[in-house]
Amino acid sequence: MKPVKVGLLGLGTVGTGVVRIVQGNQEDLSSQVGSPITIEKVAVRSVDKVRNIDIDPARLTTDPWEVIRDPDIDVIVEVMGGIDLTREYILEALERGKHVVTANKDLMALHGSAILAKAQEKQCDVFYEASVAGGIPIIRTLIEGFSSDRIVKIMGIVNGTTNYILSKMSQEGASYEDVLKEAQELGYAESDPTSDVEGLDAARKMAILGTLGFRTNVELSDVTVQGISSVTKEDINYAKNLGYEMKLLGIATSQNDHITISVQPTMIRKNHPLASVNGVFNAVYVHGESVGETMFYGAGAGELPTATSVVADLIAIIKNLKLGVNGLKAIVPYKQKKLQSDDQVMYKNFILLHVDDKAGVLAQITQVFAEYNVSLASVVQQPNATNPDAEIVIITHRASKASFDRVLQYFENLDVIQRIKSVYRVEDI
Amino acid sequence: MKPVKVGLLGLGTVGTGVVRIVQGNQEDLSSQVGSPITIEKVAVRSVDKVRNIDIDPARLTTDPWEVIRDPDIDVIVEVMGGIDLTREYILEALERGKHVVTANKDLMALHGSAILAKAQEKQCDVFYEASVAGGIPIIRTLIEGFSSDRIVKIMGIVNGTTNYILSKMSQEGASYEDVLKEAQELGYAESDPTSDVEGLDAARKMAILGTLGFRTNVELSDVTVQGISSVTKEDINYAKNLGYEMKLLGIATSQNDHITISVQPTMIRKNHPLASVNGVFNAVYVHGESVGETMFYGAGAGELPTATSVVADLIAIIKNLKLGVNGLKAIVPYKQKKLQSDDQVMYKNFILLHVDDKAGVLAQITQVFAEYNVSLASVVQQPNATNPDAEIVIITHRASKASFDRVLQYFENLDVIQRIKSVYRVEDI
Repeated sequence: MKPVKVGLLGLGTVGTGVVRIVQGNQEDLSSQVGSPITIEKVAVRSVDKVRNIDIDPARLTTDPWEVIRDPDIDVIVEVMGGIDLTREYILEALERGKHVVTANKDLMALHGSAILAKAQEKQCDVFYEASVAGGIPIIRTLIEGFSSDRIVKIMGIVNGTTNYILSKMSQEGASYEDVLKEAQELGYAESDPTSDVEGLDAARKMAILGTLGFRTNVELSDVTVQGISSVTKEDINYAKNLGYEMKLLGIATSQNDHITISVQPTMIRKNHPLASVNGVFNAVYVHGESVGETMFYGAGAGELPTATSVVADLIAIIKNLKLGVNGLKAIVPYKQKKLQSDDQVMYKNFILLHVDDKAGVLAQITQVFAEYNVSLASVVQQPNATNPDAEIVIITHRASKASFDRVLQYFENLDVIQRIKSVYRVEDI
Repeated sequence: MKPVKVGLLGLGTVGTGVVRIVQGNQEDLSSQVGSPITIEKVAVRSVDKVRNIDIDPARLTTDPWEVIRDPDIDVIVEVMGGIDLTREYILEALERGKHVVTANKDLMALHGSAILAKAQEKQCDVFYEASVAGGIPIIRTLIEGFSSDRIVKIMGIVNGTTNYILSKMSQEGASYEDVLKEAQELGYAESDPTSDVEGLDAARKMAILGTLGFRTNVELSDVTVQGISSVTKEDINYAKNLGYEMKLLGIATSQNDHITISVQPTMIRKNHPLASVNGVFNAVYVHGESVGETMFYGAGAGELPTATSVVADLIAIIKNLKLGVNGLKAIVPYKQKKLQSDDQVMYKNFILLHVDDKAGVLAQITQVFAEYNVSLASVVQQPNATNPDAEIVIITHRASKASFDRVLQYFENLDVIQRIKSVYRVEDI
């Protein structure tokens, strides 16, 4: 049988995993698709680099265009990362009728709709299971498994670096700075960790999940983002004492077809299935109107887990190739996007204030909440151990984001408040 | 656009859910498949029964053959249950070129290969996502999500009734009999609970998961089964004190392409993700060689969760119908089945013995383990609170099933042992 020829862009961690799986599971894979699969050409940064996989150096090139323009190649697997140039590579590959697998969440979050439109025009497949939550087949699940349902909420731990940091801070009472340093030494965090710790990576993944779950075109700018760099070990202690774990959660909700998506450090009840997802693991919780609560858990990154998803996409493309139906099952978001306004977005909040330790302060503060219609679930005032201020810890009932933001704004100018120390979303369900 | 016409066999819990979802989500569903979907005819037990769904009585019939022989019907959705007669209905529907969705695990576990062979012959689709773990899309995940990987272990909590019973016994220290009675009153257990509590239902589901995960034809007779009816609250207390939860686990493993599948009450470490799956929820843990550890969690039964999977299958069939590729992506197990022999099946065991309370007994017992090469991880001897015997609690290291069975056989005839009180598998990973 004529082999299916694959062009690989990138031979870093994931690319190496792809080669390993395609070579190591060749018998299994070809039994499933009915022909051998060969890695025909690979675009790399350096041809001479020593690699611990078995690949003929003649197949390596430093020029991605050489791979894309090779007429023998049926499918392009893009695992090189990058945005603008990579977009050009992929658009050109599609223009030439090649199908594409990509693990590139940045690209799909920013240019997904342009790429999918080109794919549809050219009747090509573009699959990107590995772009969110590594080895967890969450994209297939949203597209196919829940095609019959209306998704009302998606909550995701979709960034391993920040989950590693928050888990360690919680388990060991360590500071953010110390754990970040350790994560960098272990290779779990980049030397410039901004994209992870400021929530941008998670926001990109949530834009992809929101698009698929709500069948509307979510853009990155629709996602509100707050990172974890200002989370202290004291905050995590407060969370634990109140019965919560602190997680960087992507939260996407749809109510009457109006959606809202955010990424923020969130206190989530200890008995929630997401609360015990620790370390570099990822998990996506999906609540469907009919299916109810579900959760999908697994490795969010890493050579082989991510490559598992890439090669599963490759298998799906080759099966379509055999049937001549590539590009015909494209999922085009068919709903007009309607964003929920801030006075309709409702959730509970945790707020920690440093205030003057004198009579009447608590009354003054609770009065502000009352004026803006934010009712309170619990209020604790206690002396601050390290300075003459008092600390007030408040958990609100569900309140609109608009009202709560007005309270915070008011507090900024309230004399008796020394400092709004911390503010977190609270998820009780 | 010409509507796709569906014939429904059965209008019980799941059938009602299917009607509700097809009607309630009609706009969403037809946006996805490009034409309306109508429930054309429904086979029911009684036409006159009062139902709280909106369905034209003229569409109801008590004769399933009338539905199957209707030439206008494109897809048969079977949610009536039953085995022999239902098999005939489905084979005839396929013979007539109709595609089939079924939620029937009994049928698929016993006659899946005959049904899938007929489907292939007739180029029809047979999808059965709802047959295992209700709303969790685990069948799709095994077929597509992990097509690239080699699955080495599947552990499933796939029966809600027994998980409800064991969870309640653990949480409330209640007896098996009391919780079973409560579950029957709540409708979580049948009046004849045998199929659930003796593990048969779980075994059928594990046969299906094993077939898909290992790509070989697992039959029900390949699954070793032990139910939960002899699990006592004392056993559960022992488990908890040792750091475990007791769960009815389906465990399927593959080692060098040799497989073994069992269903049995198992002590699983409290920090394992399966240990905190409680109540009627289901979860399937899948360990792939490349993807590592993953877990999928959700409602295992119920009207709407199960119907979600049924209608998702229906959507997939209709998409294939539009493309003219039904039956062309059939998954045929391509590996020859090789069962692991009992001297290669290795796991840890818990054993609770009632023995004569006299000198030398413990030495005699540990000597038996030594003779059969079963080494021990922990041994505790203590007086029995309620009678003059002593209790010995032993946890073994990983030992072959063959050796351990020989130990048990020897114990049957050992004078100093009054009773082998309990034996459970132990999962430490």
